[in-house]
Amino acid sequence: MNPKIKWLRDKINMENMQGIIISNPVNIRYLTGLTAEGVLLITRKENFFLTDARYLEEVKSTLTINDEIIVNDITNITRDDYENFFLFCENVGFEENYITYATYKKYIERYKINNFEETENLIEKQRMIKDDEEIMLIEKACYITDQCFSYLCNYIKIGMAEKEISYEIEKFFRENGADGLAFETIVASGKNSSKPHAVPTDKKIEAGDAITIDMGCKYKGYCSDMTRTIFAGYVPVQAQKVYDLVLKNELQTLKEYKEGASIRMASKMVENDFKLNGYDLLHSLGHGVGLDIHEMPFINSKNDSTFKANMVVTNEPGIYIPGAFGVRIEDTVLITKSGCINLTKSDKNYIVVDK
Amino acid sequence: MNPKIKWLRDKINMENMQGIIISNPVNIRYLTGLTAEGVLLITRKENFFLTDARYLEEVKSTLTINDEIIVNDITNITRDDYENFFLFCENVGFEENYITYATYKKYIERYKINNFEETENLIEKQRMIKDDEEIMLIEKACYITDQCFSYLCNYIKIGMAEKEISYEIEKFFRENGADGLAFETIVASGKNSSKPHAVPTDKKIEAGDAITIDMGCKYKGYCSDMTRTIFAGYVPVQAQKVYDLVLKNELQTLKEYKEGASIRMASKMVENDFKLNGYDLLHSLGHGVGLDIHEMPFINSKNDSTFKANMVVTNEPGIYIPGAFGVRIEDTVLITKSGCINLTKSDKNYIVVDK
Repeated sequence: MNPKIKWLRDKINMENMQGIIISNPVNIRYLTGLTAEGVLLITRKENFFLTDARYLEEVKSTLTINDEIIVNDITNITRDDYENFFLFCENVGFEENYITYATYKKYIERYKINNFEETENLIEKQRMIKDDEEIMLIEKACYITDQCFSYLCNYIKIGMAEKEISYEIEKFFRENGADGLAFETIVASGKNSSKPHAVPTDKKIEAGDAITIDMGCKYKGYCSDMTRTIFAGYVPVQAQKVYDLVLKNELQTLKEYKEGASIRMASKMVENDFKLNGYDLLHSLGHGVGLDIHEMPFINSKNDSTFKANMVVTNEPGIYIPGAFGVRIEDTVLITKSGCINLTKSDKNYIVVDK
Repeated sequence: MNPKIKWLRDKINMENMQGIIISNPVNIRYLTGLTAEGVLLITRKENFFLTDARYLEEVKSTLTINDEIIVNDITNITRDDYENFFLFCENVGFEENYITYATYKKYIERYKINNFEETENLIEKQRMIKDDEEIMLIEKACYITDQCFSYLCNYIKIGMAEKEISYEIEKFFRENGADGLAFETIVASGKNSSKPHAVPTDKKIEAGDAITIDMGCKYKGYCSDMTRTIFAGYVPVQAQKVYDLVLKNELQTLKEYKEGASIRMASKMVENDFKLNGYDLLHSLGHGVGLDIHEMPFINSKNDSTFKANMVVTNEPGIYIPGAFGVRIEDTVLITKSGCINLTKSDKNYIVVDK
């Protein structure tokens, strides 16, 4: 059997469940490699993937006999079939953080299950710890991202529109082996950079602008995530103090990221240092990266768990001064027993384009 | 007050609700123009948008005083504040088709509401009927899509990879005023075209290939959706019969699309004609198009409602022959009292590229 499904079977047995209904397509991809729409049922003895005619060809070309997954076309599934999948099963898990309330009600009506059990991100928690192949794919996505950043440092000129740059980033990713974007690229210059989640506009880059570029690509499904704030023409004096403070915190945080370290403390350290200097940390310090661009663990002061080896996470302190400018510096890193390894390696010293 | 929110207030009053919690970001955009993350609360007397610090600047620059929406930063909202929003409210609606089961449980715990009422796609149903401005935006997205198709007819050559073409489509959209893609473009050639939801690959276009191109862009948030199957070099004899049958059905369906006509019957008509010829209609005949690429109404033989004037919907019959090829022809059209108007206008006769 597919080893990830075997893991899941052992796990749900331990939790005294007789089955699980998996609806989140990212979890289905993680467990099976399938990108087709459908629902994965792990029943007492068998594994079913319920999909529709549009995906049958694709599913057949992805799965092998070793996956031990029986594929059903939903148009052929009767009311009785649905009731039989989990017949006499006491506890069957579902993804309460993924399915809608309406779907939950539909499942209750459709499957004959005594207790629907919330599974509390069972698979998402497992996905936090990456295996060697996953790490290799994220490394590759980060490598393409670094290459893109090098390219941008020569490409960006005063007078270019933010949209033009964001478009060039996407083009670079696609032409250099990535599947595409991991998320909508942020290119925010001047005043726009004071919005943490700015969308690229037609605004043209001006001399003295801070330019925050938050970008990432996907490689075989796996994401990268990196932010740099660079400058056009020169580094304005008022930006230097803020930049230095953000960079100091980014570098200090990298020293805190290691197996066993408190996630809350890493975040608190940055919050406190920002406060001492009169600023706030407006968003989380970071998040896990994998098949999803934002996944567990979420690194903020409310998370009371610790870092574990083979987590891949971001470290992204930022300061935003409304109506003026913002600075964010972000790396994707791999947690190890003794520290962390930067997977994004682009320069973090002042970078001035079009000098 | 914002007229769309005024409509919603009247509507929920009619349904005997004292408020509604709107969580679906597309519905929030429809009602307010906001693209920021957050939750919109329509309470007895006031309208609140609960968001976080990341979006405050953006929200302030979008809303005007006439919107009458009070913006709250969730970090400042206490447990008591949450309980007070709907204090003593009997029935408050929520979006059971959008929020997860876990969020539903959180809302129950957070807000003091006697009855949470399922709202059965209240806003999605209103979104089906487009106003003049919405129609204009979709028309513009369709116009860019038609321009792109004209461009492609000269651009595509034998030997090009599917990915190269899909990438060129995205580039064309962005360079011609679109926000970006409405959905991941499909460029499926030869055998790949037999998969209705194929993803562009490195496969190169060969002489005699059917090439199915399913593409759409967004313009100010509104989508277009069009499919054409074209041919490289020549039209193979075995493809002609299938092409003719699909086109005949697409054209016949256009005559059925009008206010008051049965959605089920339109779909059944195609299903029956395909069956007579030994084929199946593997997917829906069409869907609504607006802020979402797939929205209500869903046009299939299970839908027992009728077309209404000012709906914008697709008409997309397709036949797929496993291991061989596929043909799909799709237009986005506006329903009127007396018929329908094609918003995508590209040629549907045999098109042969690189002759």
